Amino acid sequence: MIQITLPDGSIKEFPKGINAIDVAKSISEGLARNVISAKFNEKTIETTTSLNENGSLTLYTFNEPEGKKAFWHSTAHVLAQAITSFYPNVKLTIGPAIDNGFYYDIDLGDDTISEKDFIDIENKMLEFARGKHEFKMREVSKQDALDLYKSQNNQYKVELIENLNDGEITFCDHSDFTDLCRGGHIPNTSLIKAVKITSAAGAYWRGDEKNNQLTRIYGISFPKQKMLTEYLELLEEAKKRDHRKLGKELELFAFSAKVGQGLPLWLPKGAALRERLENFLKKAQKKAGYEMVVTPHIGQKELYVTSGHYAKYGEDSFQPIKTPKEDEEFLLKPMNCPHHCEIYNNKPYSYKELPKRFAEFGTVYRYEQSGELHGLTRVRGFTQDDAHIFCTPDQLDTEFKAVIDLVLYVFKSLSFENFTAQVSLRSKEKSDKYIGSDENWEKAENAIINAAKEKGLDYIVEYGEAAFYGPKLDFMVKDALGRSWQLGTIQVDYNLPERFDLNYKGADNQLHRPVMIHRAPFGSMERFIAVLLEHTGGKFPLWLTPEQVIILPISEKFQIYAEKVLHLLENSEIRALVDDRNEKTGRKIRDAEMNKIPFMLIVGEQEENEGLVSVRKQGEGDLGTFTIDEFISIINNEINSTLEKF
Amino acid sequence: MIQITLPDGSIKEFPKGINAIDVAKSISEGLARNVISAKFNEKTIETTTSLNENGSLTLYTFNEPEGKKAFWHSTAHVLAQAITSFYPNVKLTIGPAIDNGFYYDIDLGDDTISEKDFIDIENKMLEFARGKHEFKMREVSKQDALDLYKSQNNQYKVELIENLNDGEITFCDHSDFTDLCRGGHIPNTSLIKAVKITSAAGAYWRGDEKNNQLTRIYGISFPKQKMLTEYLELLEEAKKRDHRKLGKELELFAFSAKVGQGLPLWLPKGAALRERLENFLKKAQKKAGYEMVVTPHIGQKELYVTSGHYAKYGEDSFQPIKTPKEDEEFLLKPMNCPHHCEIYNNKPYSYKELPKRFAEFGTVYRYEQSGELHGLTRVRGFTQDDAHIFCTPDQLDTEFKAVIDLVLYVFKSLSFENFTAQVSLRSKEKSDKYIGSDENWEKAENAIINAAKEKGLDYIVEYGEAAFYGPKLDFMVKDALGRSWQLGTIQVDYNLPERFDLNYKGADNQLHRPVMIHRAPFGSMERFIAVLLEHTGGKFPLWLTPEQVIILPISEKFQIYAEKVLHLLENSEIRALVDDRNEKTGRKIRDAEMNKIPFMLIVGEQEENEGLVSVRKQGEGDLGTFTIDEFISIINNEINSTLEKF
Repeated sequence: MIQITLPDGSIKEFPKGINAIDVAKSISEGLARNVISAKFNEKTIETTTSLNENGSLTLYTFNEPEGKKAFWHSTAHVLAQAITSFYPNVKLTIGPAIDNGFYYDIDLGDDTISEKDFIDIENKMLEFARGKHEFKMREVSKQDALDLYKSQNNQYKVELIENLNDGEITFCDHSDFTDLCRGGHIPNTSLIKAVKITSAAGAYWRGDEKNNQLTRIYGISFPKQKMLTEYLELLEEAKKRDHRKLGKELELFAFSAKVGQGLPLWLPKGAALRERLENFLKKAQKKAGYEMVVTPHIGQKELYVTSGHYAKYGEDSFQPIKTPKEDEEFLLKPMNCPHHCEIYNNKPYSYKELPKRFAEFGTVYRYEQSGELHGLTRVRGFTQDDAHIFCTPDQLDTEFKAVIDLVLYVFKSLSFENFTAQVSLRSKEKSDKYIGSDENWEKAENAIINAAKEKGLDYIVEYGEAAFYGPKLDFMVKDALGRSWQLGTIQVDYNLPERFDLNYKGADNQLHRPVMIHRAPFGSMERFIAVLLEHTGGKFPLWLTPEQVIILPISEKFQIYAEKVLHLLENSEIRALVDDRNEKTGRKIRDAEMNKIPFMLIVGEQEENEGLVSVRKQGEGDLGTFTIDEFISIINNEINSTLEKF
Repeated sequence: MIQITLPDGSIKEFPKGINAIDVAKSISEGLARNVISAKFNEKTIETTTSLNENGSLTLYTFNEPEGKKAFWHSTAHVLAQAITSFYPNVKLTIGPAIDNGFYYDIDLGDDTISEKDFIDIENKMLEFARGKHEFKMREVSKQDALDLYKSQNNQYKVELIENLNDGEITFCDHSDFTDLCRGGHIPNTSLIKAVKITSAAGAYWRGDEKNNQLTRIYGISFPKQKMLTEYLELLEEAKKRDHRKLGKELELFAFSAKVGQGLPLWLPKGAALRERLENFLKKAQKKAGYEMVVTPHIGQKELYVTSGHYAKYGEDSFQPIKTPKEDEEFLLKPMNCPHHCEIYNNKPYSYKELPKRFAEFGTVYRYEQSGELHGLTRVRGFTQDDAHIFCTPDQLDTEFKAVIDLVLYVFKSLSFENFTAQVSLRSKEKSDKYIGSDENWEKAENAIINAAKEKGLDYIVEYGEAAFYGPKLDFMVKDALGRSWQLGTIQVDYNLPERFDLNYKGADNQLHRPVMIHRAPFGSMERFIAVLLEHTGGKFPLWLTPEQVIILPISEKFQIYAEKVLHLLENSEIRALVDDRNEKTGRKIRDAEMNKIPFMLIVGEQEENEGLVSVRKQGEGDLGTFTIDEFISIINNEINSTLEKF
């Protein structure tokens, strides 16, 4: 008999040789039907693996990420089986699960696969799946493994095997198909009820462009047809909300091949949106005691040698800018911190004057390979809502909490209700890779954890994830489709104060090092606006939206009254416009609905005579007739309810 | 007899051989005493030159720039005379008049001249001046001229003479001193009553650092001692108003050797000042129909090849930025226009949608040699208050007038009462250096002149000063010390629309080229703030000043009331602070006066009990006691009176 510890801490006895499925059965038949993967003593195993010693067992269903991983990786085997049944001469390489589905990289030789082939592949996969073939692992000797793949002329698998030792090499068989595989499968193929091949793209063997080009076939699969349908709908919705598509439709930003890839041009509506976001944050920052500064977009190479950025990123980034006549070299700034350190260094400080909080919407430039660029989320130039707080170690606690308050205010005002936080600390093992005294690290780590607790954050702690210069707290928001995005960050830094020899005079009249906090609630304007677009589908909170109100005169006769209403709204700082096109009112309403303008004011004879407006809310319909003052109250109340006082 | 036409158009007859002084005498003895230079038929002559033909004669006194030029150039001769009397072995080169005084570049050989020698030189100059020596021109043959200077081993004068032809070479004698000289002197040395040697600095022969280094001795002189005293006072005042000094005192900006020369760091107070100026202009621009855009600070080299900037400036500017992995090159943007053209090109326009007015506070980078950098007026990175108007040729007239209105509003709001405008047109001779059709140039030039006339500008027209791409209008403001600065500019451009292939669909359904207007009322934020600092001596208009009000509690007891007043002022968007130092009220007032804070509110027992404030105005003294609301009205009225509605 062996003792199995379950995740709830309970310990059960089973005969030696039992497997995960049988353990599940002992709990409930329902569970057993759904278990598709397992971990034993923190190692992924097959659900059919015999357990021969005491240990902890975790069972996974499709609901857990580990279950999905086994499911999708297993489907990759079936994909490979289907492909080889159509194209027997292709060479398989690797087929892992990914965040959403799986892929298989295949050397197709002279064959090609295109979208029109997908349906045949899917059908063949489902046909194989219905065979209810078990996935069976078996160990093979290095020689036998090499013999097999050499006989197939598959240099990729040979290369993989050559890097393994005897005892580490396993094959997985299902049906008549065999693949080199480390394991981690679902019990059998029949669990795969729905399959979708999503795309095929070029990929290099081992990601290195000097190697052979392969074809990467992406797919996803589910244990229920309904789940696939829902997933495809979500994908469709995500496509509609793609910020690149919305950015174009709403005329927010554009790219120009002449200006260069990854360098967004902000069109009038986008620039105004950015400005409103910046003003919103500026106002809150002012209340929180920040001071704005402005610094150049370049700095001498020496500046980044001092900061350490050059040693770390110099070679992989935009190269130094030389001058025609002098022996100087400049770099596009990849970060604002060195400039802010130099501002701090511009005069001496007493501890009484700290903290100093320097904020800047600072545009920074970082080289990314063109293949990695993506809309506004991966660019070569972006504007950080950056600030650096210079404080005494004792002030860290208070400052950290105040920054969290600011971040939470920002997220709330923008209706990001779902977010989590990650606290990144030093690794638990002693390490000399961290700069700064143990005492100060302790202080900083405690400050972060206390602040996270006190502010009621939903946070996880990751050891070993701190930067070498200090611990940090990152915020991940979930958008309307449930996707996670990393946005705001708060980081403690003991390194730059050292490198820039920053100091202040303490109460003891001695010079001390301040601590630095880097923080950016939005992260960057570009990324934040991208996420906001995908989150809201372009329907921004009322306070932020480009056009809050559109006035629709029902005919030319009421144009003057419409202009009068416009004028009154503008005097109350409401962003409005008049649709003076010679179109039917129905058409004007439809267009305004499509353009997601929150309020439509319809004005005709009755409205003009009585000084009223008929109010229609986007997506909700008619609200009734109001005086202009009443309507201004309605809109202001709605703004204030989102944009609470900071 | 010859006929002499005077500037008023009158024609007088004189005997052949008469000179300018005698003509002056025939008008009045007083004029004759003051005439120190003359032009005959548009050529500078000596006042003693015999006139032997009919022609126009203009007489100049010290009040005219031409008179000053003769005066200062003549003094340079006396300087050279004094120097050679002390140091007989020096070699003279050239000694021209400049805007304020004159200099002489001298090869001192083994001798040196330092500030302690200036007084001896001045005294010697005055001693020679009192000798009432006439300046007499005489023509010499090239050979004789060369012989003289070769005998002195003066290779500089030899080089100058070698570039002249027989008949072009004249010497000027006064007293026993002779110099190679083209002419343009005052009648005699005795007019020089006051002399000041201002500095001595290194300079290269012909400005080329490959040549010998010379010593440039700067000086200034006047016909009255009082004028020198006034000038030195003005200079002293200018030193106090030096924007670099004020910028430091007021903590507006700083430079860091690590960040790099010519790259200003805007400190909190300076950044806030900039932002107020930007917001002020943004508000006016919004009313004038501008749309803000945001563009990156770099662009592909190709962008500037297209715009023509690379061919024109590329080699002399910051060099291209390479990337580590791809074959792309970027440039720091020297101008915003190419980016704005690409924004225009992002979608098609109909004539009904024009004009488009894209505005951006765009930071640009231009390489300047380090020796040429000067505070904020000559920098390597600066932010233009840039905008580009894209309009049809027919809209140019209206657009140009609207831009002038905006510029005038800006100048008025900032109390620049004295400004002049320069209209730069094509040269009168036919030339093919200008791009664009004659018809369009005609339209544009007329638009500018009409606009300048209609808006009542004090303007001059300069032919041949237009850029090759279009005519322009520049604004020069005079600061409080009467110095001229070039600020705002408005330029018409036919070139970039061509190069970027910009177009719009006309009423005829055909594609047409829009015209572009570049304009910047401030010019650049850096330069404008520098000029504003020197103009105001740091005492900004109330609406702009960093701290409008300082509250001075007369003791700690009234701290809470002071905070309450502060809060009420802040709610009314008035920028205020409390001086809570443990200092006597007198000291607090003195410091506030020195810091140029416009209003001081003194609060003690009576004020607290009755909810009042005692108001003191900087530089003016006590205004009396008011309720807080009354005070808010006072300050707002004063703001509104400067900052009229646009």
